[in-house]
Amino acid sequence: MVDKNTDGSNQSFNSFYNKENVKGMSRTDLALEVRESFKEDDVEIKGVILDEEYNKDKDIRITTVVIKDQKGAEAMGKPIGTYITIEAPKLQEDDESFHEPITEEIVKYLKKVAANLEEVNVLIAGLGNREVTPDALGPQVVDNLFVTRHLIREFGDEFKEKNNLGNVSAISPGVMGQTGMESSEILRGIIKETKPQLVIVIDALAARSINRLNTTIQITNTGISPGSGVGNNRKALNKESLGVDVVAIGVPTVVDAATIVNDTMEQYMRKQGLEEKEIYQFLSEVNQQTANMFVTPKSIDDSIKRISFTISEALNKCFS
Amino acid sequence: MVDKNTDGSNQSFNSFYNKENVKGMSRTDLALEVRESFKEDDVEIKGVILDEEYNKDKDIRITTVVIKDQKGAEAMGKPIGTYITIEAPKLQEDDESFHEPITEEIVKYLKKVAANLEEVNVLIAGLGNREVTPDALGPQVVDNLFVTRHLIREFGDEFKEKNNLGNVSAISPGVMGQTGMESSEILRGIIKETKPQLVIVIDALAARSINRLNTTIQITNTGISPGSGVGNNRKALNKESLGVDVVAIGVPTVVDAATIVNDTMEQYMRKQGLEEKEIYQFLSEVNQQTANMFVTPKSIDDSIKRISFTISEALNKCFS
Amino acid sequence: MVDKNTDGSNQSFNSFYNKENVKGMSRTDLALEVRESFKEDDVEIKGVILDEEYNKDKDIRITTVVIKDQKGAEAMGKPIGTYITIEAPKLQEDDESFHEPITEEIVKYLKKVAANLEEVNVLIAGLGNREVTPDALGPQVVDNLFVTRHLIREFGDEFKEKNNLGNVSAISPGVMGQTGMESSEILRGIIKETKPQLVIVIDALAARSINRLNTTIQITNTGISPGSGVGNNRKALNKESLGVDVVAIGVPTVVDAATIVNDTMEQYMRKQGLEEKEIYQFLSEVNQQTANMFVTPKSIDDSIKRISFTISEALNKCFS
Amino acid sequence: MVDKNTDGSNQSFNSFYNKENVKGMSRTDLALEVRESFKEDDVEIKGVILDEEYNKDKDIRITTVVIKDQKGAEAMGKPIGTYITIEAPKLQEDDESFHEPITEEIVKYLKKVAANLEEVNVLIAGLGNREVTPDALGPQVVDNLFVTRHLIREFGDEFKEKNNLGNVSAISPGVMGQTGMESSEILRGIIKETKPQLVIVIDALAARSINRLNTTIQITNTGISPGSGVGNNRKALNKESLGVDVVAIGVPTVVDAATIVNDTMEQYMRKQGLEEKEIYQFLSEVNQQTANMFVTPKSIDDSIKRISFTISEALNKCFS
Repeated sequence: MVDKNTDGSNQSFNSFYNKENVKGMSRTDLALEVRESFKEDDVEIKGVILDEEYNKDKDIRITTVVIKDQKGAEAMGKPIGTYITIEAPKLQEDDESFHEPITEEIVKYLKKVAANLEEVNVLIAGLGNREVTPDALGPQVVDNLFVTRHLIREFGDEFKEKNNLGNVSAISPGVMGQTGMESSEILRGIIKETKPQLVIVIDALAARSINRLNTTIQITNTGISPGSGVGNNRKALNKESLGVDVVAIGVPTVVDAATIVNDTMEQYMRKQGLEEKEIYQFLSEVNQQTANMFVTPKSIDDSIKRISFTISEALNKCFS
Repeated sequence: MVDKNTDGSNQSFNSFYNKENVKGMSRTDLALEVRESFKEDDVEIKGVILDEEYNKDKDIRITTVVIKDQKGAEAMGKPIGTYITIEAPKLQEDDESFHEPITEEIVKYLKKVAANLEEVNVLIAGLGNREVTPDALGPQVVDNLFVTRHLIREFGDEFKEKNNLGNVSAISPGVMGQTGMESSEILRGIIKETKPQLVIVIDALAARSINRLNTTIQITNTGISPGSGVGNNRKALNKESLGVDVVAIGVPTVVDAATIVNDTMEQYMRKQGLEEKEIYQFLSEVNQQTANMFVTPKSIDDSIKRISFTISEALNKCFS
Repeated sequence: MVDKNTDGSNQSFNSFYNKENVKGMSRTDLALEVRESFKEDDVEIKGVILDEEYNKDKDIRITTVVIKDQKGAEAMGKPIGTYITIEAPKLQEDDESFHEPITEEIVKYLKKVAANLEEVNVLIAGLGNREVTPDALGPQVVDNLFVTRHLIREFGDEFKEKNNLGNVSAISPGVMGQTGMESSEILRGIIKETKPQLVIVIDALAARSINRLNTTIQITNTGISPGSGVGNNRKALNKESLGVDVVAIGVPTVVDAATIVNDTMEQYMRKQGLEEKEIYQFLSEVNQQTANMFVTPKSIDDSIKRISFTISEALNKCFS
Repeated sequence: MVDKNTDGSNQSFNSFYNKENVKGMSRTDLALEVRESFKEDDVEIKGVILDEEYNKDKDIRITTVVIKDQKGAEAMGKPIGTYITIEAPKLQEDDESFHEPITEEIVKYLKKVAANLEEVNVLIAGLGNREVTPDALGPQVVDNLFVTRHLIREFGDEFKEKNNLGNVSAISPGVMGQTGMESSEILRGIIKETKPQLVIVIDALAARSINRLNTTIQITNTGISPGSGVGNNRKALNKESLGVDVVAIGVPTVVDAATIVNDTMEQYMRKQGLEEKEIYQFLSEVNQQTANMFVTPKSIDDSIKRISFTISEALNKCFS
């Protein structure tokens, strides 16, 4: 009776990146992957700065994409802002000694995108559906946070200073299919009532490449803006919609089923010499079947558990 | 470092009913049990109307306590309003055929305390801590609700009327130890943003008598008012604090550890001829040890699963 | 350090159906889909009987595939036995009134494949990983079962007969990545110790077609036999490996990521006139990337909850 | 219909320590607390050696009770063996830096009670009901274990040695109300099939004193023996019933509701000069009401999460 497509999924799960051409059919929430998709044709995109850094010892690659102006935003289909991507293949390994360095990187870049992080009142929102494993990242991060707002209210600023604590509150708002409400509505209400100065949203993302699943962390000061960042602000979680600065931490945990088929098909069809229009038409038909399906690894439970722990540790370090 | 007592528990878990005499030391969230505590001394309490009905076939007892005025409120230590208690020992049994009649009773009395229930926009809030079994009632009810607000927004009023649906949204706000925020703050913010006309809160309660655990459902139009309903509105969930009508559905799932000790001791000490003051002093000392401890049955998981299903079925019936 | 591929998944998730040709690259656990894959070339397969029945009112299609002999087993790549498939698109709908008829069909066909179902001692095993949503079907069925073995042991046969109960025990053994043991080892040990006369295993399956996900139930008297049913009995759960009759109830909840890509590519490449060998080679390379990835719908949590409830209701009806 | 009392709880929850006198009415699973109950009357108990050690820096107290012979076993109501109790009030604090020293103590004393711990094949069993928070300790420990048996089987002894791994398998058998089987039956079957040389069982215990809840860890080489260790071997998990050495790690997470009432009442009635027989009779009546009820703190979820993590870390350290 009810179209499950529209209600069972969280915001980024719905944030398709469609531009009515073949390139637009493969969805990614990673600015890095959008940037990569231009690599062959355009060596430089106007309004977009790209910077890469590689730590060989730790096997961690940091890529910073800065979208400087409206031109860059249009080319990239993402809003103006800074997008930092931490790629660490070792995140996949069940080796505790490795989570320390990743935690440090997260802390470092969070402080970079959010000034005075320790001094402001922060609301951390774990987006996503706790009942669907690859979408449970946000709620699982929130489950491990050390919240302090209520303690500071009870024991006063002295307590805060003595223990060197930040002022942290947290919520897992659930997804629209569970609540009947947009996450943006829930958060906007809570923000008006509790007045945090910064919101950090944690969310599971969709990547284009399978290799990036559960090995990549994107930190951005733009919040989450489904679609091209233009219009559709009902669903957006950003300064415009929430009224306060919004930092987003995202981890790609799924690839859209359509994307995985499209990428293989497109590559093959191009080799066959087919034209853009033919490819687009073929894929459009194929995609109807795979709408609202995602691809994820069988061991996704271990990955989510591990990475959510790493992110919550990083956040706890920031604030205590 | 942190006093877990003040943050790990939900609102009603903290709503002690203290009047600095022996009677006040035994806590209950049930208006029915407060009324019972007067039975011996006062046959009638001014400002309080009591009505009882018993269905022998179904073994369901309905008690209605109406607190009519401020005098009654003071005597009872509860705010003015109607408190309906459904007692059904068979709720403890794993017999599905029995849940149908209970569901009907809940629907009937919900409609009694909330006029035009089907026509107003409703927000249902599942209070409590999903990680502590006897406190998970509210979140588990919400997990089984059929929410519709987002569907009506998307498909319009026609869709609503065609399918004969109510407009329902729902949230499990978590407890202060998880969020750093009062449930009242979270709900007030969401209410301002999404504008429901009625809020229904579901919560686990504390009873005085072990026999009432998991066999009793209290429905009231007063919301939840910790303490005596006077002051402490920071924590209250009622029309005054939330700005809309609040109906509360509560099920006693625990007895305070202090209460269970107090009741046994008091009974014995009175027989021994001790005076009020002596008894009070003795119990005060004993109670320090048992503060923030609760008593619950070993099979609480089955009870919570069963009763939360019954309540969610009743709510789903009200609205579709 | 550890190859997650080999340990994070349950048995059927690993039961690839490989025959070193293009047809063999698309995996399915449904006998029905194996049969369909022959449709074009072979109208009849020796040793395999196919029977179809459609109830238009309820929109339920029952297909029975009987593999009669070794020839049929080899052609089908599945062991000799009866495979009943209940296809009910309405299983996808959140309409409770529909679960009654499906429950009845399950009971009916369970009784068909397992003689004297109510009279024998039964162990029900919920296979799969409770932490990965589409693989949690088995454990969630077991969570809702009414087990009786311990009651009959305590209160005697009179109690059993008075209440008209079957003798039911149940276990969710977990997956090898969690236990370090094969499900077959765990079950074999428990069976030797507790001596059930019949084992019913519940498991999430992989289908070839997305349309069959969460709308199809396969009931078979062959148990679960990964691979072609020949060899690899270490992982099998059947009469040979467990020593008692084994009935399996399976629901396809995922499509292998490789399968979804393969099917689209193959269809296209065949139209292009490519030869079997070329197609096979191309797909082999593509498949390396998608190994151990699965495709599932975003609303998988709702589907698993609903279908596991339907199956547990059917089993509870069989035995009480 | 069904008496939930007998099936909803795990083994130690049922292991009442009854001796038909007042002393016997207060239950504890801690050898240390049994020993304490003698303190006033008997300075030394024949056949029982007591040793205490206190680390002031870490605020950790280690008490070793050795029951040397049958005489000691009878006096203590517990089987012959070594019982080590680690008392660490700081286990209650949410301070990560403290878990390191506790982890070390657990490793140290595990190695003391189980010779050649790293070299033998070990099965770790997490007893208890994962759905009842204070009883979920065992399953939550197992959830965080690093199991290796299947990897060693697949990659061989070289792999084991190169990575310096123990051979570990693990299971959470559930409780009788969920499975219809005794944990001892399930474990005995699995042991026969997979042949571990040592079983480590993890279980939530009942203490007599509220102050010991979630601050105490008992390690013993006797396994778990409900009742007085004499008879009732159907439920026991020890060398006699399982056929291999059994080490038990237990944490008191509940106090029996009867115990908490009894202890307060008894203390008071003795002061009043009542006789043993009178006290016993009074308490017997009171206890009927509180049978199968337990007392636990409101913040039990945090405690279980923290302590289960500490124990799983200790076990992971032992074996890798």
